[in-house]
Amino acid sequence: MTLQNNKIYPPINMSTPISKTPLIQNGSANAKRNEIKAHFMSTYTRYENLFECLANDEAYYLKPESLRHPLIFYFAHTAVFFVNKLRVAKLIEHNINDDIESMMAIGVDEMSWDDLNDGNYQWPSVQEVRNYRKHVSQLVLNLIDQLPLTLPIGWDDPFWIILMGIEHERIHLETSSVLIRQLDIHQVKPHSEWPRCQNDNPVVQNSLIHIDAGTIHQGRQLPSETYGWDNEYGSLETEVAAFKASQYLVSNHEFLSFIEDGGYQDIQWWTDEGWQWKQFKQAEHPTFWLKKAGQWYYRSMTEELPMPWSWPADVNYLEAKAFCNWLAARTGEPIRLPTEAEWFRLYQHTINTHYPHWDHTPANIDLAYFASSVPVDHFTFGQEQFGDVIGNVWQWTETAIDGFAGFQVHPAYDDFSVPTFDGQHNLIKGGSWISTGNEAHKDSRYAFRRHFFQHAGFRYVESEQQVNQNFNTYETDELISQYLEFHYGNEYFNVPNFPKACIDTLIQYVDLSEHKRALDLGCAVGRSSFELAKYYDHVDALDFSTRFIRNAINLVDHGEVKYMIPTEGELTEVKSFSLSTLDLGEKANNIEFAQGDACNLKAKYDHYDLIFAGNLIDRLYQPKQFLSSIKDRINAGGYLVITSPYTWLEEFTEKQNWLGGVKINGENHTTLDALKEHLKADFELVGLPQDIPFVIRETARKHQHTVAQLTVWKKHK
Amino acid sequence: MTLQNNKIYPPINMSTPISKTPLIQNGSANAKRNEIKAHFMSTYTRYENLFECLANDEAYYLKPESLRHPLIFYFAHTAVFFVNKLRVAKLIEHNINDDIESMMAIGVDEMSWDDLNDGNYQWPSVQEVRNYRKHVSQLVLNLIDQLPLTLPIGWDDPFWIILMGIEHERIHLETSSVLIRQLDIHQVKPHSEWPRCQNDNPVVQNSLIHIDAGTIHQGRQLPSETYGWDNEYGSLETEVAAFKASQYLVSNHEFLSFIEDGGYQDIQWWTDEGWQWKQFKQAEHPTFWLKKAGQWYYRSMTEELPMPWSWPADVNYLEAKAFCNWLAARTGEPIRLPTEAEWFRLYQHTINTHYPHWDHTPANIDLAYFASSVPVDHFTFGQEQFGDVIGNVWQWTETAIDGFAGFQVHPAYDDFSVPTFDGQHNLIKGGSWISTGNEAHKDSRYAFRRHFFQHAGFRYVESEQQVNQNFNTYETDELISQYLEFHYGNEYFNVPNFPKACIDTLIQYVDLSEHKRALDLGCAVGRSSFELAKYYDHVDALDFSTRFIRNAINLVDHGEVKYMIPTEGELTEVKSFSLSTLDLGEKANNIEFAQGDACNLKAKYDHYDLIFAGNLIDRLYQPKQFLSSIKDRINAGGYLVITSPYTWLEEFTEKQNWLGGVKINGENHTTLDALKEHLKADFELVGLPQDIPFVIRETARKHQHTVAQLTVWKKHK
Repeated sequence: MTLQNNKIYPPINMSTPISKTPLIQNGSANAKRNEIKAHFMSTYTRYENLFECLANDEAYYLKPESLRHPLIFYFAHTAVFFVNKLRVAKLIEHNINDDIESMMAIGVDEMSWDDLNDGNYQWPSVQEVRNYRKHVSQLVLNLIDQLPLTLPIGWDDPFWIILMGIEHERIHLETSSVLIRQLDIHQVKPHSEWPRCQNDNPVVQNSLIHIDAGTIHQGRQLPSETYGWDNEYGSLETEVAAFKASQYLVSNHEFLSFIEDGGYQDIQWWTDEGWQWKQFKQAEHPTFWLKKAGQWYYRSMTEELPMPWSWPADVNYLEAKAFCNWLAARTGEPIRLPTEAEWFRLYQHTINTHYPHWDHTPANIDLAYFASSVPVDHFTFGQEQFGDVIGNVWQWTETAIDGFAGFQVHPAYDDFSVPTFDGQHNLIKGGSWISTGNEAHKDSRYAFRRHFFQHAGFRYVESEQQVNQNFNTYETDELISQYLEFHYGNEYFNVPNFPKACIDTLIQYVDLSEHKRALDLGCAVGRSSFELAKYYDHVDALDFSTRFIRNAINLVDHGEVKYMIPTEGELTEVKSFSLSTLDLGEKANNIEFAQGDACNLKAKYDHYDLIFAGNLIDRLYQPKQFLSSIKDRINAGGYLVITSPYTWLEEFTEKQNWLGGVKINGENHTTLDALKEHLKADFELVGLPQDIPFVIRETARKHQHTVAQLTVWKKHK
Repeated sequence: MTLQNNKIYPPINMSTPISKTPLIQNGSANAKRNEIKAHFMSTYTRYENLFECLANDEAYYLKPESLRHPLIFYFAHTAVFFVNKLRVAKLIEHNINDDIESMMAIGVDEMSWDDLNDGNYQWPSVQEVRNYRKHVSQLVLNLIDQLPLTLPIGWDDPFWIILMGIEHERIHLETSSVLIRQLDIHQVKPHSEWPRCQNDNPVVQNSLIHIDAGTIHQGRQLPSETYGWDNEYGSLETEVAAFKASQYLVSNHEFLSFIEDGGYQDIQWWTDEGWQWKQFKQAEHPTFWLKKAGQWYYRSMTEELPMPWSWPADVNYLEAKAFCNWLAARTGEPIRLPTEAEWFRLYQHTINTHYPHWDHTPANIDLAYFASSVPVDHFTFGQEQFGDVIGNVWQWTETAIDGFAGFQVHPAYDDFSVPTFDGQHNLIKGGSWISTGNEAHKDSRYAFRRHFFQHAGFRYVESEQQVNQNFNTYETDELISQYLEFHYGNEYFNVPNFPKACIDTLIQYVDLSEHKRALDLGCAVGRSSFELAKYYDHVDALDFSTRFIRNAINLVDHGEVKYMIPTEGELTEVKSFSLSTLDLGEKANNIEFAQGDACNLKAKYDHYDLIFAGNLIDRLYQPKQFLSSIKDRINAGGYLVITSPYTWLEEFTEKQNWLGGVKINGENHTTLDALKEHLKADFELVGLPQDIPFVIRETARKHQHTVAQLTVWKKHK
């Protein structure tokens, strides 16, 4: 611990001090049971205690934010969550209160800022919710006494669900404090157990301080020392280039320069998304700022006070980003927000312990001192005295949240993380004054839509390193996800991976003395192209569908493919596979994926030693023309390999253009007959036609099971 | 042979006498090769010789019948047929003449009488066709020399194709003679090698003669003594009740009474189909009758002559049927046309040899005497002297052609028989003066649309025995055929028959001490109902689809299920399975199939020991209502068994009504969860849910492969 010069604040005065998140790796089960019980009670009562900041019961029913539910929802929600997750985990059998549980379960996440919610709810009374919460509390306490507990507590264990409920309540402790902060000032009241800091230091000049390059290893492993959300597990290694970081978080004073320079009126500083939000909200300054009679005031959770200029500016990502763009232009330096890895590099550089291992809280975090921010120069870290590396307010990063390699969805809460892996949710790091439990852990990874407010501000960095904004989103389109699973996912009914089986089979028939150029026509999401690249120096891979090709390119770019496939009804399963695990990465750069029409190929697609047309011919609108034109693109002695189940459908190919599967002069004319007839002038059939089965999963229980025929045709020399 | 009193006619004078169809069971290969060569030449040249009856080349291009091609088509067609079938059988590689072969291959079968064909054809010249025929003749002769020949000749042997071509030409020898007979008299000319009979005997009185009951065994087995068409193979046993048969075919004289009694003007004698045809054609008398200056004339193949009253009346089925109805009314006796089996009973009663085994032709058949009919009392058979049991003109029967048990399509000519198995094509038996080769064989089975003309007349019978007109047509609807194959057809990917597997599985969980009544809800085409009937005394079997139910009922009625399933593109495969082969017939009568709505069941469907809902719940529009109402129909201690792959689709069930596969309060709620919840008050789950896979074939290569879950629920006592 390298804390320096931190003036001592008295610890916050509370009837029930907030507990620390339990260590769950080892220890005595009985002691742990008692510790968790205390942890639960601490959390549950502190959460209820927060609502005492409301001026009256009416305030429970006001919507502090048009896009979110009123506080009565959140008051009930953390208890409902226990019941629902315990049911999902089959630890309890029955609901406690159907009405409350159906009303208070969902609608937690904020929606897009222009997506108005006019749901009509018949909310229960505050007393009803209090009674309900008592019921649930008793239920959970009984379960803590009764459920089996072994250490380490694993993620499939009953106690993982108990801890999940507790940590979930900790999250809402913080988000509800933000909602209370957004309520009209007359609806809230100061509370002795939620005191704000009374200090406003003299303004300090911010400056940029050099940080050396370094390697960052992220991702927790199981069993872990404390409870973590699923998105924290897995692994990611990042090489962080040297950069400069601002010594302090941006203070209200520093942010004022942006406002006074007309920053909120100047579109050039804002991203498209940022400007649209600003226009919609008519924002002229940070949301917790007020201007009265020409003077700036500041809204804490329960009070309005004259602007504390030394406190950090609370802004959303969009405002922070606009500030950075403005500052970059004014200074001529590459100023931007840090990435998640850069935040870690700064942490690594300045702090060598982490929550919950400290005895004395080194930052404005974990409700240790105040129910508000403190001056940005109060808590400093490391030799360079960086302010607030953790605590005070969260720090926006440039990084959209994503799963680490090996990410697994926790089955009891499958929509905690995955819906945020969309490139629209940016990570905040460091925690705020009200971040407790897992939120105070360095490995926690919370992400919000970029327009969202938390107790969050920012530090800026100077770096030439560009941030890759090419986000690898989960493919949710059903057809494409089907194909991703088909090419990269599991095998069903013991049928081997089809694109791989095709290439493995054709390779046995092909003379590989010429193996420079191959063309994969109708490559879909690209598996056969990767397989071909094992044998051919260069593979052109074309598909008519840009959506397919986009996924193949994504896979090369990110080394990973991620998608959601239906299991039953609207329920889905999240899948991901990496090129390295599939042993496909090595030659991936020898493949050139592009959109193309097999019936109308560009001239450059020529001089191939092999053309593979996998399950293509019965989807072409002009298969005969394809067969007659494709031969000119194959070298003498080269190969054309065709696979198809010969599923001719008028939807894809007008019947008059079907190759086979037709009566000609009254006689059956199969597609194999037709291939022989069309190709005999230029090719010889090598070996016998081979049957290659494939399975395409539609749901967890429904599949297409098809048998394609593979034929290898060698062009005459 | 019990031929009696047949006056001797001199044999027909022809330059090349028509050969008899070869016996192919045994003998020397070399001798057989020569015999077949002679048989081919005899057929080929006699067919060309027939066209010498045309007055000039112009006559080749006239359409004697608006629904059929001109004779130039048929002149070429029998040669084209050889080429096409030899190609299909891979005995030759190349076409002879693409134009002729594509133009002359199809359009042979007459269409429905009101289905006008306005095809636009550029027919070749007669000389071009003659040249083409020479080419083909040389090709076939060479093949007869070269193709491997072993005896017996089997139906997969190359020589079966040669024989098929020859027999096909024999058919067209006859049908072309009919077309020539339909040409304007000025377009034809008498020919010395096609002489008509010059006799017209004094009119004889027809009478009905008793025939004893008897058992008829039909159907040829392979290897067979001579070439046969696919529809002749298999087996059928029929108990024929005693009946009376008219001694003679109905002569022109006998038919005149019907005309003179206003038969062609009186709708009451005609079937609906018959009256529609009569009205369309404005028919007032048989088609080969003419009235000139108040006198009746008769059209033979090449001549008009004063009506030979003792010759048989040439009519179509519709006219023959009208005559019988009229005669029945006039006599008060149950007069009708004979069935196929009754014709055989008469044959069995009167003749004890058959073509080609006779030395002296016992009937006006096989072109032995005339190119025309002879008096109905000239050739007589058996003790009772029945006229024309075979020969003279074909005899219409009441029987629509159908395959025998064990019927297999010949792969080289898959549309010879099956398209006629539609209940619209009635069998003609006995052969005519120009029936040669297979046509003269007692087992041949030719069938034509009921309005069609051949050299065909009729004999009538008197019988109380009703003719079953409930025809078991091939199911051609793709969905229903899929289900028939799913329930009764082959197993794919080694996945056992699903409905059987379901019942076999559930039976293991069910206490069978009460096994009186079972209900199969959503029985589709009925397999599970048959399986349930093995264990339950009475099975009610309901499906929402009348088309499904109709097929299940057909199966009970006919003991056989027949359908066509797609193989590739428009190509199909014919399938049939019998209840007895599947071991399902024994309890079939304990099943009551009916249309019904599982969500709105009639009150009578009640008091069940077991209700089986196979793959039903995810196709209901109100599955929750179904679950809540179905319990009242089950006895205490009885069972509800549900299987489903839980494939919820808005197409079948509005999303708000899905049982499971949904998020409830944000949590995954599976269908199994929902079943437990909905059923727990009244049922207990017996054993664990079982996975039961199934495969539905879509084409020869494409299938649905699904895994249903089976749960057994026992109702509380």
